Amino acid sequence: MTNGDLAQSLAAMGKAARAAASNLAQASLDQRVAALRASAAAIRANRDLITTANRTDMQAGAEQGLSPAMLDRLLLDDERIEEMASGLEAIAGLPDPLSRVLAEWQRPNGLTIRRIAVPLGVIGIIYESRPNVTADAAGLCLMSGNAVILRGGSEGFNSSHAIYDCMREGLRSTGIDENCVQMIGTRDRAAVGYLLSSMSEWLDVLVPRGGKSLIRRVQDEARVPVIGHLDGICHVYLHADAEPEKALAIAVNAKMRRTGICGSAETLLVDQALAGTVLPDVCTALQDAGCEVRGDAEVMSAVSEATAATEEDWSTEYLDAVISVRVVAGIDEAVSHIAHYGSGHTECIVTEDAAVAADFLRRVDSAIVLHNASTQFADGGEFGMGAEIGIATGRIHARGPVGAEQLTSYKYVVLGDGHTRS
Amino acid sequence: MTNGDLAQSLAAMGKAARAAASNLAQASLDQRVAALRASAAAIRANRDLITTANRTDMQAGAEQGLSPAMLDRLLLDDERIEEMASGLEAIAGLPDPLSRVLAEWQRPNGLTIRRIAVPLGVIGIIYESRPNVTADAAGLCLMSGNAVILRGGSEGFNSSHAIYDCMREGLRSTGIDENCVQMIGTRDRAAVGYLLSSMSEWLDVLVPRGGKSLIRRVQDEARVPVIGHLDGICHVYLHADAEPEKALAIAVNAKMRRTGICGSAETLLVDQALAGTVLPDVCTALQDAGCEVRGDAEVMSAVSEATAATEEDWSTEYLDAVISVRVVAGIDEAVSHIAHYGSGHTECIVTEDAAVAADFLRRVDSAIVLHNASTQFADGGEFGMGAEIGIATGRIHARGPVGAEQLTSYKYVVLGDGHTRS
Repeated sequence: MTNGDLAQSLAAMGKAARAAASNLAQASLDQRVAALRASAAAIRANRDLITTANRTDMQAGAEQGLSPAMLDRLLLDDERIEEMASGLEAIAGLPDPLSRVLAEWQRPNGLTIRRIAVPLGVIGIIYESRPNVTADAAGLCLMSGNAVILRGGSEGFNSSHAIYDCMREGLRSTGIDENCVQMIGTRDRAAVGYLLSSMSEWLDVLVPRGGKSLIRRVQDEARVPVIGHLDGICHVYLHADAEPEKALAIAVNAKMRRTGICGSAETLLVDQALAGTVLPDVCTALQDAGCEVRGDAEVMSAVSEATAATEEDWSTEYLDAVISVRVVAGIDEAVSHIAHYGSGHTECIVTEDAAVAADFLRRVDSAIVLHNASTQFADGGEFGMGAEIGIATGRIHARGPVGAEQLTSYKYVVLGDGHTRS
Repeated sequence: MTNGDLAQSLAAMGKAARAAASNLAQASLDQRVAALRASAAAIRANRDLITTANRTDMQAGAEQGLSPAMLDRLLLDDERIEEMASGLEAIAGLPDPLSRVLAEWQRPNGLTIRRIAVPLGVIGIIYESRPNVTADAAGLCLMSGNAVILRGGSEGFNSSHAIYDCMREGLRSTGIDENCVQMIGTRDRAAVGYLLSSMSEWLDVLVPRGGKSLIRRVQDEARVPVIGHLDGICHVYLHADAEPEKALAIAVNAKMRRTGICGSAETLLVDQALAGTVLPDVCTALQDAGCEVRGDAEVMSAVSEATAATEEDWSTEYLDAVISVRVVAGIDEAVSHIAHYGSGHTECIVTEDAAVAADFLRRVDSAIVLHNASTQFADGGEFGMGAEIGIATGRIHARGPVGAEQLTSYKYVVLGDGHTRS
C-alpha cells in the first residue's frame, strides 16, 4: 500500500467506525449481550480455523527467532481459545455499563439534573503479540457501547484476524452495525503512525497494550487521549509493626506468585527495626522460592547470597524472579523512595499499626495502595470489575483497572417545565 | 529571552509545580480554604494596584485598536474586582472535592476496596483577554488540590500579574507551598508552544480558555490531555406537541438572554406542523427582541423580514443577535441535523410529549440535553456545581461543566489482613 492508500483506507475505517458507534450507542443491552454470545459461539465453532492461523504465526515466529516467552504469548491452544469464548460470555454477564444514573439532583428552581453514563465513542486499541487481546478488547468495547479499531501485533497477524472474523460473524447475527469492530488489515507498520497522528477526527481515545516501547511511542505521538500504563514498579513496604508471618507471606506472594504481571512487586522496603529479624527471614524465603535478591549494604550483611543492588535496580521492572531490597529508617523514607522510583501503579504496606497504614495509604500517590494485601491483587478481576483492558497509571479519566465502566463517558439530562433563565 | 532560557525557566516552573502539587495534595481542607480566603482578602486590599495595572492594559489595548468587546472583557472595575474576591470565597465554601469516597465494596475474600478522590496533579491553564480568569481558575485548582501554571493573554498581562501577586500573597499566609500557583512571566508567545509541546513531564492536563483559534491550537499541538470546548452551536427544537407559550419563552430566552455565552442557542429547529402558527410567532418575538432571523425557504415564506440562511449558517456560532431557523419533518430530521451541524455542547427539545422528549434526550449525543428548559442553563453555577472552568465538549474525563470535582482523579485503597493471591 502507498502511504496515500493507507491514509485513505484508515480514514474510511474511522468514518465507518463513527457511524457504527452511533448505531451501537442506541443498541439495547440485549443486542450487545447477543452479539457477545454469538461471537463466543463463532470462536468455538471456528476453533480449527483459529488453530491453523495460529500455527502459521507460530512457525513464522520460530523462524524469526522470537523468544520462548513471546512464542508462549503468541500460542493459542484449545484451552486459550475456550478462555476467549468464555471470557466474552463473562463480559456479557456484567451489569450494563450504560444508562447508569451516576448522579441526580434537583435545583431550587425545580430543574431536575441527571448525569447518565454513555459510551466514549470510538476506541483505538494497539496491541502486541497476544492475539487473544482481539476478543477481550473488542468484547469490552462492545459491552460498553464503543466502536473499536484494532491493530494487532504483526507476529500474531493471522491469529488475530481469524479471531476478528469470528467477532464480525457474531455481530452479523445481531442488528448491530458490524463496523463497530474493525481491524487494520495490513502489517504495514506505518499504519500505527497514522492511527496515532492522523485519526483524531475519528478516534476518541487510544489504548495501547504491550511493551514499554510501544506504550512510550503511543504516549509520545498520540494526538488523542491515551489510556494506558507504562511501568509497574510495585513496592512492598514492611513497617516496624508488621506481623512477621503476614510480612513473609505477602512479600513472597507479591513477588513470586507470577513474576511476569505488572502487579508483581519489584522492590521490597524494610524498616531498620526489622533488619535483624524479618529482613533475613523474608529474603531467605524469597531465595528459597527461586528469587534473586539484590540489596543495599545492610541487606548484603544480613542476607547470605544477596548481591549488591545498583542505582538502576531501584527503577527496574524485572518482570522476573529478581527483587531489589532496601532498608529504610521508617515510613517517611519509604514514602519518598516510592515517590522517587515508583511508577504510580501499586504499592503495599504491611503493618499492624492502623495509623501508620492510613498515613501510607494517604501519602503514597499510586493508582492502587494496599494495606496487608499482596500487590498481585492489582487486577480488574480481583477488584470484582470483570474483564479489564489494563491498569491505567495516568490520572485523567480512568486510573487503576480499566473495565467496561471505565470505557464510558457521561452526559447531563436536564428536565424542566418551560424554565427560562433570568 | 532566548528559546533556551524560556525552555529552562518553564522546566523549572514545571518542576516546582510538581513539588508544590504533592505538598498541596497533603494540605487539609482548612488550609485550602484559608488560602482562598486570604487570596480574596489580598485582592480587596490591593484593589488600587490591580486597577492601576488594568489601566495600563486598557490604554495599550485601546492604542492597539482592540474591539470594544475585547476591551470590555479586559476591563476590571471595582465591581469586577469584588466579584473575583467573592468568587474565591464562594469556591472556599464548596464541599471538599477531595477525599470523597466515590465507591466502596467488599470482595468475597474479605478485601475492602475503596475508590477515593485525589487531585489531578498539575494543571496548565491558557486563557485570553479576561484577567479575572486568573483568580477563578487558580481558585478552582487550589480548592481541588491541584497545582496550576497560568498563561494569561498578553493584552491583560499587567492585570493578570497584579491578581496573581494577590493569590501568592494569600498562599504565603498559609502553610501551603506558594508554587502551587505560578504564572508565566513573559509575553513571549513562544511560551505557549513550550507549554503545549515540551511540558508533558510536568503537566497532567491543559485547560484552554478563550476563542476558537486558541482552543483549536491547544487541541492540535498539546502533548498532554486537554479539557476544553471548541464550539457552542446549541439547538432548540420545537416539536409538534410543543406548548406554544413555553416554545416562545424558551426560544427567545435561549437566544437573547445573553448572546455572547457558549450556551446561547444558534439554531432553531421547528416541526412542519408548527410552520403556520408557532414558527412565525416565535420568529417575530425574536425579531422584536432585536434578533436577526435567517431561515430556509419555508421560514422565509412564513416570517416577514427573514433573510435566507446559507449552508454556512447551520454551522456558525454567532455569539450575537442572529439565529438560523429551519423547518424539519419531525424528530428524526431534527436529531440528524443536530448530529451533522451540532458541536456536542447543549441542545433542547420543547414538547409536551414525554415519550418524544425521552427519545430526543437519549438520541442526541451532546454534553447537555434539556427538555422544556432554556439552553442558557448550561452553566456550572446553574447546575449547582459552583464555579466552573468551562464546559467540556470532549468525552474523556469530564464532560459538561468542569467544576472543582471534575478537576480530581481517584485512587484505589485496598484493605486486607494478610491477604495473598492464590
